[in-house]
Amino acid sequence: MRVLITGGGGFLGQKLACALGQSGRLRGQKIAALTLADIAAPACPDMPFPVTGVACNVAAAGDVQTLMAQPFDVIFHLAAIVSGQAEADFDLGLQVNLFGTLHLLQAARAAGNCPVVVYASSIAAHGGEEPEVIVDGVELNPQTSYGTQKVMGELLLNDMSRRGMVDGRGLRLPTVSIRPGRANAAASSFMSSIFRDTMQGDTSNCPVAKDYPIYHTAPRTVIANLIHAANLDGAAFGPNRCINLPGRSDTVAEMIAAMTCVAGAEPANRITWNPDPTIQAIVKGWRGHVRPEKAQRLGFVTDASFADTVRWFLADDIAKAS
Amino acid sequence: MRVLITGGGGFLGQKLACALGQSGRLRGQKIAALTLADIAAPACPDMPFPVTGVACNVAAAGDVQTLMAQPFDVIFHLAAIVSGQAEADFDLGLQVNLFGTLHLLQAARAAGNCPVVVYASSIAAHGGEEPEVIVDGVELNPQTSYGTQKVMGELLLNDMSRRGMVDGRGLRLPTVSIRPGRANAAASSFMSSIFRDTMQGDTSNCPVAKDYPIYHTAPRTVIANLIHAANLDGAAFGPNRCINLPGRSDTVAEMIAAMTCVAGAEPANRITWNPDPTIQAIVKGWRGHVRPEKAQRLGFVTDASFADTVRWFLADDIAKAS
Repeated sequence: MRVLITGGGGFLGQKLACALGQSGRLRGQKIAALTLADIAAPACPDMPFPVTGVACNVAAAGDVQTLMAQPFDVIFHLAAIVSGQAEADFDLGLQVNLFGTLHLLQAARAAGNCPVVVYASSIAAHGGEEPEVIVDGVELNPQTSYGTQKVMGELLLNDMSRRGMVDGRGLRLPTVSIRPGRANAAASSFMSSIFRDTMQGDTSNCPVAKDYPIYHTAPRTVIANLIHAANLDGAAFGPNRCINLPGRSDTVAEMIAAMTCVAGAEPANRITWNPDPTIQAIVKGWRGHVRPEKAQRLGFVTDASFADTVRWFLADDIAKAS
Repeated sequence: MRVLITGGGGFLGQKLACALGQSGRLRGQKIAALTLADIAAPACPDMPFPVTGVACNVAAAGDVQTLMAQPFDVIFHLAAIVSGQAEADFDLGLQVNLFGTLHLLQAARAAGNCPVVVYASSIAAHGGEEPEVIVDGVELNPQTSYGTQKVMGELLLNDMSRRGMVDGRGLRLPTVSIRPGRANAAASSFMSSIFRDTMQGDTSNCPVAKDYPIYHTAPRTVIANLIHAANLDGAAFGPNRCINLPGRSDTVAEMIAAMTCVAGAEPANRITWNPDPTIQAIVKGWRGHVRPEKAQRLGFVTDASFADTVRWFLADDIAKAS
């Protein structure tokens, strides 16, 4: 069982690698080797199996072909240009999010072993003419270039799965909060930083109103769902391999209240409230309420509370780092 | 007003050119020049304005850039690899249907005049997990590579329209019947040939059962709808620029009965009934019943009867050719 994670240097890639290291198994088999690929060669945590960090620009077909010259059995495709950056640079988003996915899927097809491909799509797939509460089976009408490129990748994944070239599974990730590390160019970056940074003594700005609803999920839960997606039988997904992942719908105010319960009153006082029209324009096109019934039937999970998320953040990302 | 038709050598491209020649106007303005582009330089019918036929492989970015070096005001993008061929050759379909559309839209963006782009998508966008009767707003789940590539183009068109790069309008065409000329590699080819060929004294095979429902439209009606799409204000489409076009739902048996009413009993006797599993596998993924309410609100039209279609075919394609 050879496993590849693209975007392996990102926080999800690193957490996924650690989770695979802890279990040592995937799809009922022992993991023999793990490759972490990213634009710069990622750090390789200690594992009970060999781990290799590889520098690979997925926008370059040759890079991807070299990376995948030896077939993988399971591929987690997490590499992407995030929403804010893809909105600012249309062509870069196309190169990485659309062509990167195409290169990866073509290399997986060329390997000839019909590998399992777990594809990180996004709840940003939704917006525009869709209903306020997203149910399964509504026409995707993304209102960002990032969301558009993610959905184009979904379609390719579905078609190549139908043709038996790959065994794809696409997950539309809710906003992952609380994301560790530093703020990034994702329009959703504030949905982590107003908790992460303020709990560590810094100020952080919230660019939207307190009643803005966020459809979110904790890093621990996303990792569990990514691994669950790999373990499932592909046929269980039916003709459409791409699903809305479970998440929680909470307003910014509700999430702050949960943080206050766990971490006291100080962090919330460090949040500033300056509206940002650019970020608002992007995130107001998203949806805060989703009923992911197909994913629930398939056994994907969600968080019981945002208070859990705060506790996990303190345990996983602060206690370990200090 | 400079107009471009890709796929200008095809039967729809040629009929569209003739219709533009007859009216001489588009979007309230006089047409100054028309360019017909296709893989081989198309025939140029006599027009009240200059018409140029250009050989252009849309899969080659350079070809498209050369073609579009001088900006067009309205572009009808009809060029495509049809369903049967895109299913037989995955990479060719990607090159022409996905990359060809990308090249065209990028060249239209580079022109800097935000041209109107009328994009021919297909009812093959639908299938898989969608309901038996298609209504507006259902998640597209194409079950062919052709349908997949068409939907990927729709997403790109929507995103580039949202960004103001082009002013796109995407129409999911029903099966166009009765298509003149010869049988082609479209899986739907029989939906024309069992009428066209038998009315001209030849035999023709029907690979599906008599109760198979076809969502179809006449060439005259499609041409009227393509021109209507160009004439509309883009904002009328809302955030989703791509719509299901109106058509008629008739079974094969009902369409044959209409032909018999107009053309007598002989043609129907020339139909053979040998099932074809390859064609069935493709067309059974399509949908025979659609409620295109958004398109109807926007003023797109359908045929009153298939008997009209038969009469129009005899008048437009047989009488003129003989």
